[in-house]
Amino acid sequence: MGQVSWKGLFLSLFDYKTEKYVIAKNKKVGILYRVVQLSILAYLVGWVFVVKKGYQDTDTSLQSSVITKLKGVAFTNTSELGERLWDVADYVIPPQGENVFFVMTNLIVTPNQRQTTCPESVNIPDALCYEDEDCPAGQAVVAGNGVKTGRCLKDRGSIRGSCEVLAWCPVEKRSKPKKPLLASAENFTVFIKNSIRFPKFKFSKMNVLATNNESYLKTCRYSTEHPYCPIFLLGNIVRWAGNDFQEMASEGGVIGIQIEWNCDLDKAPSECNPHYSFSRLDNKFAEKSVSSGYNFRFAKYYRDAEGIEYRTLFKAYGIRFDVMVNGKAGKFNIIPTVINIGSGLALMGAGAFFCDLVLLYLIKKSNFYRGKKYEEVKSSSRKSLTSPTLNGNQSPDQLGGL
Amino acid sequence: MGQVSWKGLFLSLFDYKTEKYVIAKNKKVGILYRVVQLSILAYLVGWVFVVKKGYQDTDTSLQSSVITKLKGVAFTNTSELGERLWDVADYVIPPQGENVFFVMTNLIVTPNQRQTTCPESVNIPDALCYEDEDCPAGQAVVAGNGVKTGRCLKDRGSIRGSCEVLAWCPVEKRSKPKKPLLASAENFTVFIKNSIRFPKFKFSKMNVLATNNESYLKTCRYSTEHPYCPIFLLGNIVRWAGNDFQEMASEGGVIGIQIEWNCDLDKAPSECNPHYSFSRLDNKFAEKSVSSGYNFRFAKYYRDAEGIEYRTLFKAYGIRFDVMVNGKAGKFNIIPTVINIGSGLALMGAGAFFCDLVLLYLIKKSNFYRGKKYEEVKSSSRKSLTSPTLNGNQSPDQLGGL
Amino acid sequence: MGQVSWKGLFLSLFDYKTEKYVIAKNKKVGILYRVVQLSILAYLVGWVFVVKKGYQDTDTSLQSSVITKLKGVAFTNTSELGERLWDVADYVIPPQGENVFFVMTNLIVTPNQRQTTCPESVNIPDALCYEDEDCPAGQAVVAGNGVKTGRCLKDRGSIRGSCEVLAWCPVEKRSKPKKPLLASAENFTVFIKNSIRFPKFKFSKMNVLATNNESYLKTCRYSTEHPYCPIFLLGNIVRWAGNDFQEMASEGGVIGIQIEWNCDLDKAPSECNPHYSFSRLDNKFAEKSVSSGYNFRFAKYYRDAEGIEYRTLFKAYGIRFDVMVNGKAGKFNIIPTVINIGSGLALMGAGAFFCDLVLLYLIKKSNFYRGKKYEEVKSSSRKSLTSPTLNGNQSPDQLGGL
Repeated sequence: MGQVSWKGLFLSLFDYKTEKYVIAKNKKVGILYRVVQLSILAYLVGWVFVVKKGYQDTDTSLQSSVITKLKGVAFTNTSELGERLWDVADYVIPPQGENVFFVMTNLIVTPNQRQTTCPESVNIPDALCYEDEDCPAGQAVVAGNGVKTGRCLKDRGSIRGSCEVLAWCPVEKRSKPKKPLLASAENFTVFIKNSIRFPKFKFSKMNVLATNNESYLKTCRYSTEHPYCPIFLLGNIVRWAGNDFQEMASEGGVIGIQIEWNCDLDKAPSECNPHYSFSRLDNKFAEKSVSSGYNFRFAKYYRDAEGIEYRTLFKAYGIRFDVMVNGKAGKFNIIPTVINIGSGLALMGAGAFFCDLVLLYLIKKSNFYRGKKYEEVKSSSRKSLTSPTLNGNQSPDQLGGL
Repeated sequence: MGQVSWKGLFLSLFDYKTEKYVIAKNKKVGILYRVVQLSILAYLVGWVFVVKKGYQDTDTSLQSSVITKLKGVAFTNTSELGERLWDVADYVIPPQGENVFFVMTNLIVTPNQRQTTCPESVNIPDALCYEDEDCPAGQAVVAGNGVKTGRCLKDRGSIRGSCEVLAWCPVEKRSKPKKPLLASAENFTVFIKNSIRFPKFKFSKMNVLATNNESYLKTCRYSTEHPYCPIFLLGNIVRWAGNDFQEMASEGGVIGIQIEWNCDLDKAPSECNPHYSFSRLDNKFAEKSVSSGYNFRFAKYYRDAEGIEYRTLFKAYGIRFDVMVNGKAGKFNIIPTVINIGSGLALMGAGAFFCDLVLLYLIKKSNFYRGKKYEEVKSSSRKSLTSPTLNGNQSPDQLGGL
Repeated sequence: MGQVSWKGLFLSLFDYKTEKYVIAKNKKVGILYRVVQLSILAYLVGWVFVVKKGYQDTDTSLQSSVITKLKGVAFTNTSELGERLWDVADYVIPPQGENVFFVMTNLIVTPNQRQTTCPESVNIPDALCYEDEDCPAGQAVVAGNGVKTGRCLKDRGSIRGSCEVLAWCPVEKRSKPKKPLLASAENFTVFIKNSIRFPKFKFSKMNVLATNNESYLKTCRYSTEHPYCPIFLLGNIVRWAGNDFQEMASEGGVIGIQIEWNCDLDKAPSECNPHYSFSRLDNKFAEKSVSSGYNFRFAKYYRDAEGIEYRTLFKAYGIRFDVMVNGKAGKFNIIPTVINIGSGLALMGAGAFFCDLVLLYLIKKSNFYRGKKYEEVKSSSRKSLTSPTLNGNQSPDQLGGL
């Protein structure tokens, strides 16, 4: 003893050391422990692995490309514009079919605007005036259309009027048709082509199924019966988002078309299919809140015979569709598997600790078991004790046994 | 015994309790256990830490801003348009250089369209008619250009004709140049400026290298020799995506330019560089599938001397480039490190359990070892046993030893 | 012994087996172990759970929809354009108010361009010529505006000139106003409406607070006092990004408006609020680098009385605003909780292993403790040993006790 033998040292490396257990023939604690073990096992297998697929590595940062194409024409007959036919080039903004597109459904048209002076709209508080001093020259009208020239224009006989402004004149009059101009946009269709890629797994797919024949793709419409047809009726999209098309067409709004790819790449690629959902994005809270509705102004510019520029201003109301693609792909990976198994096993250790507490402190004969579990050794100055001090006269306070 | 001494209790908190091990001098199981230990260690260190960088916290939700700028002019000479030069303002849509841009390469131009009546295109099945009753007035032509007026227009002497429609007339004729109009777009260049930010790590970078001098950035072209030059020849992008430019220019298509930032932020920021890849996004499956190609219609609006609006309709074929940026940044973090180490250690516990099974049930002298590992204690009504019941006459069935 | 009794086997399943511990009355190691335990516990509770919210499942892939609306007019008086008022339809590109919008602040206007021949700009190196041979017909000018016709145009008496090109003529002259044209864009406001959704938790919210009354939303401006007001002064945005508006308005640039949603969904939804930050995206590195600034060209197309097309080319300098939304939502979830607890417990096992090493190899009486911890058993050919070989004459080399 005391002689270091390298050979023995090396050989002892291959001795198998196994923890010594004390068998407590106590059925209550035994059953408790088995219940804890089974619960953890059920959680691990049932919840973590089967339901949550904890054995998979996931990728949620997908690359997506969306192509959209609208079809449909609408005929309108108004006093302002006369008989007019609207086709895709007229009502879709921008025209190039990206993931965000706008379908114009209502309009305030202010034709033949020119750069000159005219009275500001009477509805704008800042342009209200009683005399010329109320309209300091050069000042922009707050929330208005132009810059004040310094004159207050009043109707004959009235006390108050509105400031004269340098602007695109005449200024827009603030009223829009109650009934949406392009009410028939409800029947327009949109073809949404979405190709995605999960870069982590180098997996690509499209929402247009390969098996579909051309004629199917020309005639189908997305519905619960045709979940993989990528052609949508605008009216249906709005309805599925829980809104009334005519109302929304009048005030404008934003509809989100969510395409969700939830793919289990351990299965066949053909089982990775898009799921569509629709929701309104502009007014979460109130019926007539300041934040609901959607409109914007744009202009078409012309030149007359003398080369002077004039424009037609459009305040366009309509429905903006945001195609939002998100997804999650999972594939078996050893690391999350080991992490989940490992944490489950560690939890079993915690279960054993809990049962130990019950055995050693909460049951009647805990004192006895405590003596058995903990073997007190006291080192003396003498060397090499020949018999262990396994005994019952231990202090009864082996707390914190972890 | 039985007297609770608070001082003793407190002191016993600082007694060190260590698990008692039984050394089984069985080399087979010992070697097995060492092999299991080494395997787990190799997996943990080699795969989890070195290869997969399991000690890092990762951020995959990067913020990205893309600025693109095209350069190049093309000269065309067609019967329709005459001699014409195309510059950036003509062929790039939209002009403002965002992450998605479209280069027009082929065109069907329908000039001087006015709101009036004319025969619908004969190629549209729904507009086919034999008599006026086939064209109910007010009905929109399905997949057509206008609204039927109620008249069936036939060529002299023919039985069938096409419905008269109110539309932008004349309607588009369905044929496009076989040879792309702007075939020379192959030589256009695009400058892609991409600045990214990983919000979790507050790390920003650009794909334009700081060290580059101006003249390098004006003359370089991206290639394997110049992996950090952000100027790309359109022809090369299409070629790298595995396609023929002329063919694609004729039919249109969508090309994805993937910029991948895979950054190890434990290293120097200069080692975090973008990696470019190119792929075609519109037709995954078939040569001539309904879902391949890319085109859209837009119009330029004019007014004649009388103020009547007319337009030129363009059906633009071309290549849309989607610059898609994704990335992953990793940086040392204590939490994933602990999780990975912890799960590795827990796995070692599982390895020990497995070796225990071998030792206790599968080898010849398992019975003997079982007796050594498990110390059966039976509590009797008598107190304080003085010697432990370490013995060989246990029941041979200590199953489920975990 | 040796007789397998199924009943006994079943009953033994419910025996509780607990590890046997040796109590080493060594205060040094005991205190060390408690310190290790407390450190791990403090790390687990303090850092992992309280600070890093390790009990939460997180979602970083949010869906976001942004609506922007600008307000403001600017008056300019230049020799080129005369007195002119700019409103939203004039200076915002594109008009539809998406998450990326551009405010034009400076301009180079080239009016009345027609398809004809004219001298190329003298500033372009490739167009420099001494004789007609320097201008091969049909060749496009590199980085220029047109295709060479084969003629070299020289001013009277000068030796060198520039090639004649077929282009949109006259070509753009390369100088821009030093002072930005729309300097007053500093006072424009932008209303940013952002609605987000965390798909994993099915949680939606908007940055426009429901409690705000309409008049507040019309008059408020975002500032540190009004952190939830979604209306921003352009000048402030640029200032907060650390730039000078006038300088940026002259050269152009890109500003990122980051909206960060950092939501703890275990708390009330009202505590999930956006946080705004602003940064410049185009020039990270240098004052006058080739990659700073932002501009693009676009054209407005007209037809004269004879139907000949002409255009006005704009080289627009201005500020592009990229609204970038990112976020993270966390919600209690059992799986990360178990993983973190489990890995913490496993770490405690590692702590015990470390203390074992100290106890068994580093302290004075380690030899003694080694004998107590490891109980050597040697199987002999004889069956059923009646007394264990707990003794002090072990080999002193029980290394690698894990």
